[in-house]
Amino acid sequence: MKKRILTGDRPTGKLHLGHYVGTLKNRVALQNEYDCFFIIADLHMLTTKYQDLKTVKQNINDLVLDYLSVGIDPQKSNIFVQSLIPQIPSLFTLFTMLTTVPRLQRVPTLKDVMRDLKIETASLGLLSYPVLQAADILIVRANLVPVGKDQASHIEVTREIAQRFNSLYGEVFPLPEVLIGEVPTLPGIDGKAKMSKSLENAIYLSDDSESVLEKVMRMYTDPTRLRPTDPGHVEGNPVFIYHEAFNKDKEEVADLEKRYREGRVGDVEVKEKLAKALNGFLEPIRAKRKEYEGRPELIEKIILEGSERIQAEGKETLDLVKKAMGLKYFD
Amino acid sequence: MKKRILTGDRPTGKLHLGHYVGTLKNRVALQNEYDCFFIIADLHMLTTKYQDLKTVKQNINDLVLDYLSVGIDPQKSNIFVQSLIPQIPSLFTLFTMLTTVPRLQRVPTLKDVMRDLKIETASLGLLSYPVLQAADILIVRANLVPVGKDQASHIEVTREIAQRFNSLYGEVFPLPEVLIGEVPTLPGIDGKAKMSKSLENAIYLSDDSESVLEKVMRMYTDPTRLRPTDPGHVEGNPVFIYHEAFNKDKEEVADLEKRYREGRVGDVEVKEKLAKALNGFLEPIRAKRKEYEGRPELIEKIILEGSERIQAEGKETLDLVKKAMGLKYFD
Repeated sequence: MKKRILTGDRPTGKLHLGHYVGTLKNRVALQNEYDCFFIIADLHMLTTKYQDLKTVKQNINDLVLDYLSVGIDPQKSNIFVQSLIPQIPSLFTLFTMLTTVPRLQRVPTLKDVMRDLKIETASLGLLSYPVLQAADILIVRANLVPVGKDQASHIEVTREIAQRFNSLYGEVFPLPEVLIGEVPTLPGIDGKAKMSKSLENAIYLSDDSESVLEKVMRMYTDPTRLRPTDPGHVEGNPVFIYHEAFNKDKEEVADLEKRYREGRVGDVEVKEKLAKALNGFLEPIRAKRKEYEGRPELIEKIILEGSERIQAEGKETLDLVKKAMGLKYFD
Repeated sequence: MKKRILTGDRPTGKLHLGHYVGTLKNRVALQNEYDCFFIIADLHMLTTKYQDLKTVKQNINDLVLDYLSVGIDPQKSNIFVQSLIPQIPSLFTLFTMLTTVPRLQRVPTLKDVMRDLKIETASLGLLSYPVLQAADILIVRANLVPVGKDQASHIEVTREIAQRFNSLYGEVFPLPEVLIGEVPTLPGIDGKAKMSKSLENAIYLSDDSESVLEKVMRMYTDPTRLRPTDPGHVEGNPVFIYHEAFNKDKEEVADLEKRYREGRVGDVEVKEKLAKALNGFLEPIRAKRKEYEGRPELIEKIILEGSERIQAEGKETLDLVKKAMGLKYFD
């Protein structure tokens, strides 16, 4: 049997090139080798955003469109929405008994999130974040969780809960392992370390070719280089990082890098070639998107079918859980 | 429309005369005037007892038998098992976003329970107890919650969550009120202030007449009275408290009290008359119990039908909740 992988996103907006490089590319590759579960974690979103939720439905649609357009295949993989799986909160509620408040207060991401979002007092939901995540992972009895380093401490909580459950009630859960592949980050078009929606420095998978060109033309490059004849820095230069990541014409990239170092190429040429490469990369993604765009009934069908599959999976897991605990009263 | 009341028990064992005096008698009276919801709170039980759960099913059966035998009518009232209602954990999970960790740490019962049960570190479940209770109450949109004084602080949490939800997302929930009737306590047969299973000083609703006689004969009475001819104390004397509570022959009680005070009656007579009165009180309860005892399929039917009704109710509430929040994506 194939090993199971769970990963996903909170429905807070469209995905961008940073997501592609960091995780989507990997997901598309994983779905042939593994049984993949992609969760759209709307309940987790609520831990930090619980007001003005009118756009969440649109965000979910956009996410699924992004998934499909990069090549996640709903026939191979399971795409589902967290709040449509009632077994997740049920398992979460049982798991609240198996971990302590001080343990959760020690999870480093709690302090990080509170500092970053200027949250003075943690809600119960924010404290419980890793326990809800344990329920996501264990409801499908996933074996592997590809996460960034910052989330590894959450998976530790999942492992502890699974272990505690198994030792109290009998072997039901696998101990999921963190799949740490390379999780490269892409700088923003402003040169900041990370492309991010909130920093408004992102190129989206759904951007049209004019937007891509426009964004690339105003990209941050080597600030020490004032004239095209100045020798420039290639390392750490976002324009060249993007070239390396997305331009398939490796000879062109090598030539541009060489000439940039020697002060024999202008920013405009480098950027126009990058825009062309990016649009070349995005073209098949856009074509795929066209198949689904404007057909909300198709997206809805994919979400509902995926969620039904996970409900069936969740029912099975919850049955095993209740049987093991002694809480399955009737057949 | 009738107002709705929610109350219930954790399935930790059979009910005794103390439960009858403290709450069951009241429930039977309430079910004509109100729409009553009696929850068997097995998830709440897990907050303090999560090991050795093999007896829980039997405890649930015993509870329902106790309910039925004292006159709770499943045609009038709703008897249901908490873990059979998936909408309760769903609502609980949403509610975790609407209250804070310090708020819950200030709930006085948390410290009390930890002290009484010698719990050094609170589980997340124990901290969340009042939030799960809010989900129980609000999933049926109950108006009134009859609770002891010690639980009033929990209902305050429910009211805060309901209020916060309504102000964030729109009016969905009533603000439930505490129904503080008289909640009399019955002393144990050992004279301790409270009849309780764990103190092993209880007379159970399901005790047969021989057990009742045997327990009454070894009841604690006035320790200052050494001979039947000594004048005795009636006030605070458990034997007379029971006479007052359960002996319908008020003349007999008055006569016994008078003679006890004057040193003209022996303990044996007082106790034999009490045993007779108690058995007289328990006789119709035992007769009713006989109708259901040994028919687990009937109990099962009552539990499942009651739980189905609450599932329908829960679905309706959760629909309103998700619509109000903007999380109802599909019809």
